[in-house]
Amino acid sequence: MTAPLHEAHPSSPGRRLPDTQQGMRRRNLSRVLHTVNAEGPLSRAAVASRIGLTRAAVSTLVDELIRSGLLEELGPERPGRVGRPGSALALSGRGPAGIGAEVGVDHLAVCAVDLRGEVRARAVRHGTNRGRSPEPVLRELTRLIRQVVAEAAKEGLRPAGLAVAVPGLVARDARTVVRAPNLDWHDTDLGALLPDEVPLTVDNEANFGGLAELWLNETAPRDFVHVSAEIGIGGAVVVDGRLLRGTHGFAGELGHVPVRPEGPACACGGRGCLEQYAGEEAVLRAAGLEPGEDRVGLLAERAAQGDENVRRALRDAGTALGIALTGAVNLLDPEAVVLGGALSGLAPWLLPSLERELARRTAGPACAVSVSRLGSEGPLLGAAHSVVRAVMDDPAAVSGTGAALGGGGA
Amino acid sequence: MTAPLHEAHPSSPGRRLPDTQQGMRRRNLSRVLHTVNAEGPLSRAAVASRIGLTRAAVSTLVDELIRSGLLEELGPERPGRVGRPGSALALSGRGPAGIGAEVGVDHLAVCAVDLRGEVRARAVRHGTNRGRSPEPVLRELTRLIRQVVAEAAKEGLRPAGLAVAVPGLVARDARTVVRAPNLDWHDTDLGALLPDEVPLTVDNEANFGGLAELWLNETAPRDFVHVSAEIGIGGAVVVDGRLLRGTHGFAGELGHVPVRPEGPACACGGRGCLEQYAGEEAVLRAAGLEPGEDRVGLLAERAAQGDENVRRALRDAGTALGIALTGAVNLLDPEAVVLGGALSGLAPWLLPSLERELARRTAGPACAVSVSRLGSEGPLLGAAHSVVRAVMDDPAAVSGTGAALGGGGA
Repeated sequence: MTAPLHEAHPSSPGRRLPDTQQGMRRRNLSRVLHTVNAEGPLSRAAVASRIGLTRAAVSTLVDELIRSGLLEELGPERPGRVGRPGSALALSGRGPAGIGAEVGVDHLAVCAVDLRGEVRARAVRHGTNRGRSPEPVLRELTRLIRQVVAEAAKEGLRPAGLAVAVPGLVARDARTVVRAPNLDWHDTDLGALLPDEVPLTVDNEANFGGLAELWLNETAPRDFVHVSAEIGIGGAVVVDGRLLRGTHGFAGELGHVPVRPEGPACACGGRGCLEQYAGEEAVLRAAGLEPGEDRVGLLAERAAQGDENVRRALRDAGTALGIALTGAVNLLDPEAVVLGGALSGLAPWLLPSLERELARRTAGPACAVSVSRLGSEGPLLGAAHSVVRAVMDDPAAVSGTGAALGGGGA
Repeated sequence: MTAPLHEAHPSSPGRRLPDTQQGMRRRNLSRVLHTVNAEGPLSRAAVASRIGLTRAAVSTLVDELIRSGLLEELGPERPGRVGRPGSALALSGRGPAGIGAEVGVDHLAVCAVDLRGEVRARAVRHGTNRGRSPEPVLRELTRLIRQVVAEAAKEGLRPAGLAVAVPGLVARDARTVVRAPNLDWHDTDLGALLPDEVPLTVDNEANFGGLAELWLNETAPRDFVHVSAEIGIGGAVVVDGRLLRGTHGFAGELGHVPVRPEGPACACGGRGCLEQYAGEEAVLRAAGLEPGEDRVGLLAERAAQGDENVRRALRDAGTALGIALTGAVNLLDPEAVVLGGALSGLAPWLLPSLERELARRTAGPACAVSVSRLGSEGPLLGAAHSVVRAVMDDPAAVSGTGAALGGGGA
């Protein structure tokens, strides 16, 4: 429960090196790692031929990646072949891990994902965070983080970084929550309240949800609008395979697109925002249900049973989503809209009215609507994977000095 | 009136050359041109030192650009200095010209812009094009184009390309108008109906308006939403200095963002679109004025005189713009919203209500709203400048063979 996070490495991700031999070495380490990731177990010779370096150069890089715990040898490859058998290399299941964390309005969650992309440890705490000040919530989150790190350490994994998804606007510094209306947090520097032993990144939960879709769904388009929802409704805009962040880092605020300009007042200061019609609380209210645990499950159950109040509430939410998404589709002309987050579990009852609005209102061709398979796991997985991807893109930031890598864990 | 357009050059812009000495030469020609453009009259020696090539290499490039009419020599530079005086080089005012054309709902316009960015010839025809079939409209436009080309030819300019702005959705082929509701044109291939002697590009008028703002306003931000209006309301989204085009090339359709979802039916098939509240006809109707020529001028005049009906109509249009732009700002988090097109002439009466809506509704910090100085000239200038920029980016496509450049003109 009290396992320390791994010591921060002196050459943390993002630090720029001069474009020297050292920089070249770091880029080549990343190329080796990406090649093994993309093509599965490969011998040193196969890696060398794929990336066009000499076998000797690749061996040096591979040795460093093995020493640092990023690659592992699976043993002799194809022993029947002529010549000395090469040992097949694979991404390590015991090396660095990405720690993802999520501050939800009604839960906290943490997970550890290894370089292979597998979730190796996780912890969840249900219970509302609404109106609680950041300090106790982040103390609780820190306990969950240490618990997950300790569990992962038992399997030989050590945290390479921590990424935290929050339901609010995050400044470009990737630390400060500028405004999270459903938590009532303002200008909160999460960096000061979370473990500082590993590099920290804070981002909007909808952004991490959109990135998870982009990274983990192999059939995801390159241009899409991702809708995700817990209590609030968030969005992420992906253009040409990149997340659109906006001037202040606040892009994608789909939940506050006006749907009915004279509608109910919203916590953001506006009126008739999408969140007022399709947010979880609005839907529960319209369906005549009380807030409580697993409300999405309850809505899905009642809708499946044919409860007409629930079905109407979901139909109306779908209509509101369709109106707001019409604006987004007219502005962005994406290849698809992807419904993610908790909403995705209600898709059977939301989609018909959503798609009808979108089809009749958009000026261009109707935009495809699909449902994310990640469901409400998207933001947490996106957060953890953002750390894994940072390691893959600059493994030297983790593996630079072999000596520092022995520590960490429980 | 019947001057032929210049013969299409065999190596038209956009054609790809292998990355050989030839490709290098073309890139260096462009570098010379951009350097002279950015820093004003420069000697060959100064150009050489700016771009890091030998004086001899630059001289060869400059000679070719002079022969092709892209650069001209202004005569001896700073004769008081030691050594052989260099002749200052400037962009030619007699070389290639960009021909921009605009098919408005109520007018046709054409202009010729030289490499220095100056408008050297223009022609306008007022009168409605609504409901007219494409053939007679484009025959008229062709007459205007030939008239402008002939006028420009008298000053030694020859067309390097033709770019046409249209009030509708244009396919990615940059020739086909998929849908222009206010003209009632559908799937119209403009390439088949316009002069084919020079390369043709067709684009949405709002896109050209946004590009004009980006290219011609030195203080334009890198991320902005550009609103332009004639009869319809168009938008252009610029992200990181590039126009966002979308999957089908239809991005930026601000005019069809729903403002009041149960509002009046729109030609696009939707209801309560922005165009139904802030389009020119909606505003005239709300102000109790009849459609006619120079209606924007009439609205401005009446508003300035204090006509309360007109002021209310403009205030309500500003409110509707503010609601639609709230959605855009929440989704894109741009640095600014720029009001362009005919609307910009009405800014004093539109802006207060627009800015109030935007400020009270957007979740993030209030977004700056500015007024374009290009007014309704934006799309036409953007079209002509797109040709000029293509020449600057690949001058060899025009200057490749000196022999072909003697012709053209009247």
